[in-house]
Amino acid sequence: MISPGPARPSPVRVPPAAAPAAPGAGTLLRLLRDGRPRTRSELAGVTGLARSTVTQRVDALLAAGLIGPAGEAASTGGRPPTTFAFVPSARVVLAADLGATKARVALTDMAGQVLAESRADLDVARGPEPVLDWLVARGDDLLDRAGRRRADVLGVGIGLPGPVEHSTGRAVNPPIMPGWDGFDVPGYVGERFAGPVLVDNDVNIMALGEHFACWAEASHLMFVKVATGIGCGIISDGGVYRGAKGAAGDMGHIQVPHGAGHPCRCGNTGCLEAVASGAAIAAELTGQGVEARTALDVVDLARSGSVAALQSLRQAGRDIGEVLAASVNMLNPSIIVIGGSLALAGDHLLAGVREVIYQRSLPLATEDLRIVSSRMGERAGVIGAAVMVLDYGLSPERVDVLVSG
Amino acid sequence: MISPGPARPSPVRVPPAAAPAAPGAGTLLRLLRDGRPRTRSELAGVTGLARSTVTQRVDALLAAGLIGPAGEAASTGGRPPTTFAFVPSARVVLAADLGATKARVALTDMAGQVLAESRADLDVARGPEPVLDWLVARGDDLLDRAGRRRADVLGVGIGLPGPVEHSTGRAVNPPIMPGWDGFDVPGYVGERFAGPVLVDNDVNIMALGEHFACWAEASHLMFVKVATGIGCGIISDGGVYRGAKGAAGDMGHIQVPHGAGHPCRCGNTGCLEAVASGAAIAAELTGQGVEARTALDVVDLARSGSVAALQSLRQAGRDIGEVLAASVNMLNPSIIVIGGSLALAGDHLLAGVREVIYQRSLPLATEDLRIVSSRMGERAGVIGAAVMVLDYGLSPERVDVLVSG
Repeated sequence: MISPGPARPSPVRVPPAAAPAAPGAGTLLRLLRDGRPRTRSELAGVTGLARSTVTQRVDALLAAGLIGPAGEAASTGGRPPTTFAFVPSARVVLAADLGATKARVALTDMAGQVLAESRADLDVARGPEPVLDWLVARGDDLLDRAGRRRADVLGVGIGLPGPVEHSTGRAVNPPIMPGWDGFDVPGYVGERFAGPVLVDNDVNIMALGEHFACWAEASHLMFVKVATGIGCGIISDGGVYRGAKGAAGDMGHIQVPHGAGHPCRCGNTGCLEAVASGAAIAAELTGQGVEARTALDVVDLARSGSVAALQSLRQAGRDIGEVLAASVNMLNPSIIVIGGSLALAGDHLLAGVREVIYQRSLPLATEDLRIVSSRMGERAGVIGAAVMVLDYGLSPERVDVLVSG
Repeated sequence: MISPGPARPSPVRVPPAAAPAAPGAGTLLRLLRDGRPRTRSELAGVTGLARSTVTQRVDALLAAGLIGPAGEAASTGGRPPTTFAFVPSARVVLAADLGATKARVALTDMAGQVLAESRADLDVARGPEPVLDWLVARGDDLLDRAGRRRADVLGVGIGLPGPVEHSTGRAVNPPIMPGWDGFDVPGYVGERFAGPVLVDNDVNIMALGEHFACWAEASHLMFVKVATGIGCGIISDGGVYRGAKGAAGDMGHIQVPHGAGHPCRCGNTGCLEAVASGAAIAAELTGQGVEARTALDVVDLARSGSVAALQSLRQAGRDIGEVLAASVNMLNPSIIVIGGSLALAGDHLLAGVREVIYQRSLPLATEDLRIVSSRMGERAGVIGAAVMVLDYGLSPERVDVLVSG
């Protein structure tokens, strides 16, 4: 009969921590993350907390090094009060974007600023242990370069090129990742570094990274990755929208009119990926006598002015636009970002997307809608992996545990 | 450079209240809303708060009547401690679902239980003042019948049959509501009753009501109303998903293959509403020589066994399924509820929807997906309007203000 208010599950589903010894400190830190120094009185005024409570919480945050004294405020008579501010360098985040054949690792501070970075050609199909051992070795290397220790790590964020069960950090039947199915990534990496290990698929972290770095003020963003395959990361109210089973954003297998009759690797026909992915365009060009094997071959052809390649990219943009036009009516985003390797081939893909969306969607849904190319490019994923850790590791509940530990 | 964690805006955007005099009481109440009695010690243990803080907050909630003593816990030696529980009858909610030609008003307690209810034929096109005056008169009547006063009202929730700017409670260019465009509904109704006045469109509150009453455990629900027009309410993590401009769920004007060439009232061709709405089916049947003017005529024909009507409903279900199949891949809901007057015509519409979704969507997105008819029927809206008020009015921040007032 009596129902509690709708529970808002944490965007990151890891087991809840025990009751903290310093409750409420995290709420103060959330306020201080804007970087502005504040006095104890100002903190009491903004939060409505008792002065004694604020003092206790400030002391806990100071002891953990998460905030520090930031000077003195103007005196109103008597000794001027001390101000306190967030110390982004107190902890570091290890972030990795593991692609099909390339990997990137970065060390960031708690403001998402990159302190050190490393990239390499690395085939994810080598299996979880060699790839994650590489990640751990590069992570230690970056910590060394930045003069930090494993104990300074707030958490580790990892993006993988396949479906991931975010709540457990395990890949689920990933088509291009032999040996990874069900592998306990957080368990393996978590033995090496302090803090939680969070895992997500590559397009979700690219969406987070692009949102954090370029469009933080946008409440609703869709990031579309057009490469060998096609996927979408959805940001809603600042967090990743995952859906009931974590399968949200799987746009590559939505039917498009132009796809009729084209067989798709999923077993259906007419899917978006069957006509508009890098693999599909390469196959189509080859059929026309223009040699292309991969998405990057298509990009090279377009850059060298191949009319067939440019026409194919434009049509792929239209097909992607068909799917996005429906999503614009349903989800009402304020910005759509087109990324992935095919987006590197100039504006032909983007032009096709825009053409169809503005023709098909309702005026109310498009009047303030922006459709743009990715600005972060190949760095979107690694930044997003860091943001994933920051969102979770600096949540009030986690900070309460951190300062009491 | 430094970015705060992603802000999760309140699902209800009304101006923030001043800093409360009893901070934290609302968080305790949120815990107690499950109905289970707890001692002060239990509350301190669960929240990690100091015993003195819990005592102070419990006293504030007791003084406001929101909780009451609920007996004694088993003694562990000495005097047995008192337990406290939520008192759902402490306040009431006035909820209204104003349709195109019918209106329903209900008084509920704070657990969403209906205490008194009233319905009437009422043309929303009569304009805001006569319609809202009727609502106020019926509201007073219901309060009278339940032995309550205007001051007991926690808040008022209103559903309108057109687009609403939820943050201001005003209708925006509503096609079937002459005189309502921009009218200050909260201002007009708020003069009469205590508490905030919240307004939303009918399909969003139907989605909330169906979710609250029948599918509270589902994190992601889509409610599709198929009547004269077609619209969708999206529930995500327990709240209404609105999108950037509040236009999310506008599925009636998404293109469908079967719609090609059919002109729509929006000015485009090929929209879902142009082939699958009650109005479109009635026109199609009339064209076939089977007289039908409204969605309800179609329902009557189907119930009397008209083969043409049944075939049309099945095809409408397939067309709706085309749009939903794409949304299932993109949004990954766990349940889709089909409601509205056309859903009353038996399972033909639902069968068409299921046929296409299960054929088109990906296995991961459909393995636990349920597609069902509305169980709440005509009461979904009024229950949802009450839930909208409860979600907002019993949020920790609002309760803090309530108990300090």
